[in-house]
Amino acid sequence: MITSLSQMADAVRSAGKRYRIAVAWAQDNNTVGSLYRAVIEGFVDALMIGSREQIIRTCHDTGADPSRFTIIDADDEKSAAAIAVGMTATGETDIVMKGLVGTDKFLRAVMDKDHGLLPPRAVMSYVCAVEIPAYHKLLFITDTAVIPFPDLDQKVAMAEYAIAMARRFGIAKPSVALIGASEKVSSHFPSTHDYSVMCKMAQRGQISSCVMDGPVDLFLACDPDSVRIKGVDTPLAGDADILLFPSLEACNPFYKGLMLFGGGELAGMICGTTRPVVLMSRSESELSKYYCVALACLMATHNE
Amino acid sequence: MITSLSQMADAVRSAGKRYRIAVAWAQDNNTVGSLYRAVIEGFVDALMIGSREQIIRTCHDTGADPSRFTIIDADDEKSAAAIAVGMTATGETDIVMKGLVGTDKFLRAVMDKDHGLLPPRAVMSYVCAVEIPAYHKLLFITDTAVIPFPDLDQKVAMAEYAIAMARRFGIAKPSVALIGASEKVSSHFPSTHDYSVMCKMAQRGQISSCVMDGPVDLFLACDPDSVRIKGVDTPLAGDADILLFPSLEACNPFYKGLMLFGGGELAGMICGTTRPVVLMSRSESELSKYYCVALACLMATHNE
Repeated sequence: MITSLSQMADAVRSAGKRYRIAVAWAQDNNTVGSLYRAVIEGFVDALMIGSREQIIRTCHDTGADPSRFTIIDADDEKSAAAIAVGMTATGETDIVMKGLVGTDKFLRAVMDKDHGLLPPRAVMSYVCAVEIPAYHKLLFITDTAVIPFPDLDQKVAMAEYAIAMARRFGIAKPSVALIGASEKVSSHFPSTHDYSVMCKMAQRGQISSCVMDGPVDLFLACDPDSVRIKGVDTPLAGDADILLFPSLEACNPFYKGLMLFGGGELAGMICGTTRPVVLMSRSESELSKYYCVALACLMATHNE
Repeated sequence: MITSLSQMADAVRSAGKRYRIAVAWAQDNNTVGSLYRAVIEGFVDALMIGSREQIIRTCHDTGADPSRFTIIDADDEKSAAAIAVGMTATGETDIVMKGLVGTDKFLRAVMDKDHGLLPPRAVMSYVCAVEIPAYHKLLFITDTAVIPFPDLDQKVAMAEYAIAMARRFGIAKPSVALIGASEKVSSHFPSTHDYSVMCKMAQRGQISSCVMDGPVDLFLACDPDSVRIKGVDTPLAGDADILLFPSLEACNPFYKGLMLFGGGELAGMICGTTRPVVLMSRSESELSKYYCVALACLMATHNE
């Protein structure tokens, strides 16, 4: 059972494997610093793809020993992304990670029909594991970054990805809260109809290995006192592991509020691809990037 | 300048006026307790409308002296709501408050064409003032409770209500952040088009007494470091007073996350009515209800 973000790397290390990560345009301080830590700790071999000169300079700036990395020269962001994704698609590396390349260029390489990592018709989504001091366990949150307004099929895929991630943390049957503004099904909120369908699918075993309920508001999902006071009959009982949001506009400020005002830390990754894809904002801290690398390694074991 | 929720009552008291509040079906502990405190502190006269016997019993349960209230007998929830709203519409009372009556029944009375409190074609919305330990000042948030998916006109009204509230707290020119998942205008997110229109309206003075920008994510709105790192040119500078959300589904879990995981406290009220309307969840604490009463009094002075 992994109950905090810092335990992810321990779990990967104790499995005794090193994961090969191809990093596209690997030349900003936080990317280099986070990977160097993972290399030193012994669970990652990092292939840094970009301008060799710039990568070595960044290593010196951050106190990293460049000889611990494999450096592969690339002319520009776009070709760095193509090389990194291509190596991961062919199995030369286990994981691909975005460095300083723009998100659009990077994702175009990931979604490339011939050389990319996304199977035909697969739903690509983003799941975060969040550690908040005021909650008694990790919370898995989706979708913080990719799908603006998910339809029913996309919501089902989002739930399945989050369930698979929670199970890798040792939660055999995670509780999935389908988050709305209240617990009422209402035609004012089309997401509540999708949620009703998903609960029926879970009941029929079409979404498996979980306890699912929604719509519920955040209090019913995460606060046992509210469940008691409101008298709502929900198997979540204020003890949710996973929060699924109706839109990116809803999920994004929620998780950022936890970071900014709740002292939260997170690790996240793209799901739906054939191999783990690490994609973060350029402004993300070194620690966040390190957690994301550890999470990708943890999830890579899943594919073996 | 009012910089914390506890200062609201001080500001009202120092103005030396008592506000008359009509409370519909005033017979739950938290409603009675919150009003008793406001009465004792000297800024409220409370007209408790409901079953006299039940109100007196609730007073005894909560240690309130029933002789400090004016009790008006009513047969049921619905007539209690009609009496409370009616008295406020005619000016016999300054503020109307929901007690144990259901939200639907209460709002139907508020929106009644002939005896209600909502002018024709007025936008009814909900604004909260939130106090969070990790933010350096109060945050005004809208819409936490009423409009599911506001259109442009409704968003403009929401902004104006929040600006009016912030100004009552002494913020002459509040900073309004129009919250999205990022700072990019995108046709994937129709709200970002509305936000662009609103910024132009603010520039033309059609929305006045504010600094407005959006779309911005929560970090650009509330974290100066993120503004610096991302290099986004925004007058908000990570110092927003007001957060306007694209939907109730986005705003509701956000503010509940602040309460549950960020140690937040809030006061909120319905805006757009001719007089302040206090409406809270039945499960809200006595302190929250007390803050809402103080906020309504503060905003009532606005109408004088």
